[in-house]
Amino acid sequence: MSNFRFYQRASRAFNDHPTLSKTLVVAAAFSGGSIVAYADSKPQAIDSVVPSDGAADPKKKIVVLGTGWAGTSFLKNLKNPSYEVQVVSPRNFFAFTPLLPSVTVGTVEARSIVEPVRNIVRKKNVHVGFFEAECYKIDAKNKRVYCRSTGDVDLNGNAEFVVDYDYLVVAMGARANTFNTPGVVENCHFLKELEDALRIRRTVIDCFEKASLPNLTDEERRRILHFVVVGGGPTGVEFAAELHDFVNEDLVKLYPTVKDLVKITLLEAGEHILNMFDKRITAFAEDKFKRDGIDVRLGSMVTKVSDKEISTREVKNGEVSSVPYGMVVWSTGIGTRPEIMDFMKQISQANRRVLATDEWLRVEGTESIYALGDCATINQRKVMEDISAIFNKADKDKSGTLTVKEFQEVIHDVIERYPQVELYLKSMQMKNIADLLKAAKTDDAKESVELNIEEFKKALSQVDSQMKNLPATAQVAAQQGAYLAKCFNRMEECERNPEGPLRFRGEGRHRFRPFRYRHLGQFAPLGGEQTAAQLPGDWVSIGRSSQWLWYSVYTSKLVSWRCRALVVSDWGRRFIFGRDSSGI
Amino acid sequence: MSNFRFYQRASRAFNDHPTLSKTLVVAAAFSGGSIVAYADSKPQAIDSVVPSDGAADPKKKIVVLGTGWAGTSFLKNLKNPSYEVQVVSPRNFFAFTPLLPSVTVGTVEARSIVEPVRNIVRKKNVHVGFFEAECYKIDAKNKRVYCRSTGDVDLNGNAEFVVDYDYLVVAMGARANTFNTPGVVENCHFLKELEDALRIRRTVIDCFEKASLPNLTDEERRRILHFVVVGGGPTGVEFAAELHDFVNEDLVKLYPTVKDLVKITLLEAGEHILNMFDKRITAFAEDKFKRDGIDVRLGSMVTKVSDKEISTREVKNGEVSSVPYGMVVWSTGIGTRPEIMDFMKQISQANRRVLATDEWLRVEGTESIYALGDCATINQRKVMEDISAIFNKADKDKSGTLTVKEFQEVIHDVIERYPQVELYLKSMQMKNIADLLKAAKTDDAKESVELNIEEFKKALSQVDSQMKNLPATAQVAAQQGAYLAKCFNRMEECERNPEGPLRFRGEGRHRFRPFRYRHLGQFAPLGGEQTAAQLPGDWVSIGRSSQWLWYSVYTSKLVSWRCRALVVSDWGRRFIFGRDSSGI
Repeated sequence: MSNFRFYQRASRAFNDHPTLSKTLVVAAAFSGGSIVAYADSKPQAIDSVVPSDGAADPKKKIVVLGTGWAGTSFLKNLKNPSYEVQVVSPRNFFAFTPLLPSVTVGTVEARSIVEPVRNIVRKKNVHVGFFEAECYKIDAKNKRVYCRSTGDVDLNGNAEFVVDYDYLVVAMGARANTFNTPGVVENCHFLKELEDALRIRRTVIDCFEKASLPNLTDEERRRILHFVVVGGGPTGVEFAAELHDFVNEDLVKLYPTVKDLVKITLLEAGEHILNMFDKRITAFAEDKFKRDGIDVRLGSMVTKVSDKEISTREVKNGEVSSVPYGMVVWSTGIGTRPEIMDFMKQISQANRRVLATDEWLRVEGTESIYALGDCATINQRKVMEDISAIFNKADKDKSGTLTVKEFQEVIHDVIERYPQVELYLKSMQMKNIADLLKAAKTDDAKESVELNIEEFKKALSQVDSQMKNLPATAQVAAQQGAYLAKCFNRMEECERNPEGPLRFRGEGRHRFRPFRYRHLGQFAPLGGEQTAAQLPGDWVSIGRSSQWLWYSVYTSKLVSWRCRALVVSDWGRRFIFGRDSSGI
Repeated sequence: MSNFRFYQRASRAFNDHPTLSKTLVVAAAFSGGSIVAYADSKPQAIDSVVPSDGAADPKKKIVVLGTGWAGTSFLKNLKNPSYEVQVVSPRNFFAFTPLLPSVTVGTVEARSIVEPVRNIVRKKNVHVGFFEAECYKIDAKNKRVYCRSTGDVDLNGNAEFVVDYDYLVVAMGARANTFNTPGVVENCHFLKELEDALRIRRTVIDCFEKASLPNLTDEERRRILHFVVVGGGPTGVEFAAELHDFVNEDLVKLYPTVKDLVKITLLEAGEHILNMFDKRITAFAEDKFKRDGIDVRLGSMVTKVSDKEISTREVKNGEVSSVPYGMVVWSTGIGTRPEIMDFMKQISQANRRVLATDEWLRVEGTESIYALGDCATINQRKVMEDISAIFNKADKDKSGTLTVKEFQEVIHDVIERYPQVELYLKSMQMKNIADLLKAAKTDDAKESVELNIEEFKKALSQVDSQMKNLPATAQVAAQQGAYLAKCFNRMEECERNPEGPLRFRGEGRHRFRPFRYRHLGQFAPLGGEQTAAQLPGDWVSIGRSSQWLWYSVYTSKLVSWRCRALVVSDWGRRFIFGRDSSGI
């Protein structure tokens, strides 16, 4: 009895109090809130939103599409109660995707890495509504999105609806990129969504069960137990490693006679796996996989996947071959979703491959639409495009030449506006931009540098070579979401006192500092309690200690204490009891 | 590092040692093992089974169909290494079904209540092979079963195969009984399999998400959030209770505006819910549900289920009505599976409703087929059928009359063979069978009872009224599995020294004692930490203390330490963090 009381109290502390106290705040804060105007025209409004009645100072409505890393990070960091937020996503939860490869084999359970969006936002002082639906069309002209309910429940033809917005945050993520390889969509597993991971888990067990049936030839059993991973990026590599561990730590005990028939092949079109990592890591990973018996085939392009065979062409010699397989997991990077493609046509970005935004994450060619995460890329402005404007702005005395002193006054703004400048200085091992200017002067009088426009152009001509697209990672998406939320939090304040860099082509300053990505390092788990870590400053660590670093970093990054407790207990369970091989 | 070592050691202790030591035993024990003869004619045999080579003393092959309570209990208790066992089941795991209602709302996770069959049997000294397939035909004449692989993996037309047996153990369970009510199969959820529970969980969340969409009328929202449970047995009642708790403890916080639209209705055709329980429990349950706002409608027969409406007829007055619903869970008892029906035709049981076995669980009309669990029922022999044989056997001096002394010599065998006799004595509050005989004599000379055949018949005429079919519960199935395994364990021994009762119609004794069910009590969780328990001796307990009893009994009954650890941690998780409402 007393035990029960304790639990109940603990439960209340976690569950009830935050709600109760916050519910009051929320109820008090929303009075003449606008919106859901179109969507909520019926008397019974959703989530206590009062329909807009034209009252003074209506709240601006932000519609967020997607509940992945970018969208969720935005929601978590948005703190300004003067907005009204409506989230539309086909999934009512956020999934901690870096652990997806672990879910495929049950090292971690699917439910341990998800958190319902409603749970994430319910303690906020910003009103956030949620619709479980997919957005199938963005109408930028009329500021509305068209949505369609997902799932089974029949809605009497009310499954489609429209939501109006003042600001739209597009964070719909990407789809797997098949490079139009024939047969991939029909025959391969992807590893982007939680459902993919669960499907892979079932299929792996299925393959082992099928291979254990009677009446099969050894050849047939070998085929069924041939697992092919296409793509040597972090996801593919981690999946191959997890699968290898699952087979060798758990399945061999339960399927002793078929264990020798299992084969894992990793196909990579490039010259090395993990090519975004340090060479030491790549070499270690290739070596470890070789020892583990994972067949790493580099320079192998997949040309076709039939229902039982996968065909490849060697990049080196053009040799074509086909191997039978039991399961293929396709993990070769990301492509643009069809709804985003459609949207790009509307805003004259049809000739682009990916949706482009400026450095403030605003979609180019639109006023109030932001895009972040995997569905967009930042189209960085080149210094050389603006070089004359920069020169004129810096040349305060309009002398036609720029002194170091003059330039130093705008250096800060230049570096902030064009991050490639700083990267270039670093790469040339220069201390400051004055050195760059000096380097452009050929004469001996380097002390009193004064450059004309041509010399200035020459000095900065190589700077843009340092421009790089950001990787499509959770880290980038999360930082973008947090950045955008902070911009929205301080919108009014920054309208009054802009804090961004000088507008070189216009007047005044940008409202906000542009988005700047801070790389915090990257992990590549390689199986067998070995993880490679590449941390900022090219610090590389490989082995068990990085595995423990990985455990602690991933635990701390999980979205809730619930997830943390569950993931840690999943790891403990795995150490003690092994992974479950029930085919559910 | 030292932490890791500890884990690894713990892991080894749990995982490696039993295998290693047992593997040796297993390897040593099997030399000239028979079988899988038909199935394993290929060189690469499954699970180290050496194909039968006609060597002396080949092992008898037991084929077990099904891995539910009966099948798994049989496998766990079978200890005689002179058998070779082949299990065929569409599921490669055992599921602890009494916790299924908890799985429907996430009080307990699905994976916490399952254990792979291969894991259950791998530490045994009996060789047990497993095929993940469904048996679609039993050929009793040729002693073989026809099987078909389930699942997705393509097997090049090798998905069907045949397995020979010496003994067949049919433990395939039952299907849900729809009583041929139109629309049930198409529109209702059942709650028999793990997949059903997971589907219900997704649908409940789906209903809440759909009801939160814009553009719906209140009426429509009310429909979507109307959950109907058909059947007031333990499963239906527990599900209704779990759903009520889920809605009121967890979902109301996340879906605050739709919470008042939720309705749970429990339809029961009989006069009371939980009618197999004591009246006190029934009354308490009906009362509690009333307080909880669960609409219990007694005497309501479902006549039709359309895609949005469920139609009922009141038993009392024949009144017909229809109500719109969002989800229906159908839990009204069990029916016979089509494969079993087909098998019954083969063995001249076509006119029966359920597969009949004798008291030794042997299918009537067959030699070496046993059936147990929900797929069969024990066709108890009536005393009156055998009354003359009993009389003749007991009348040793062939005097044509039976003295008490003569009868006392066979009393033990009679009671063992016909358990209804003992139940009748109990119900009449008689101490022993002599009282029964005495009661039949009308004259005053009751001291020296001597009955002729007519008087004997009269004395026992009411005895068969005490015959009852066993309930279709996990408890019965598990006891039957254990019983049958013990028979197999001691087959040879009991062939030599039969330990069963006298064969009244034949010579000698039965080999084994007949199966006797020992009722250990039953629980009915009613939600809100309230459980009703009915223990042997009509001991009834209702409330929180029984909830804790329930927790401990269920924990102890789980099939493995892994399951125990997981279920207990699930309960803890639920107390602290609540249930997860992610739609996965």
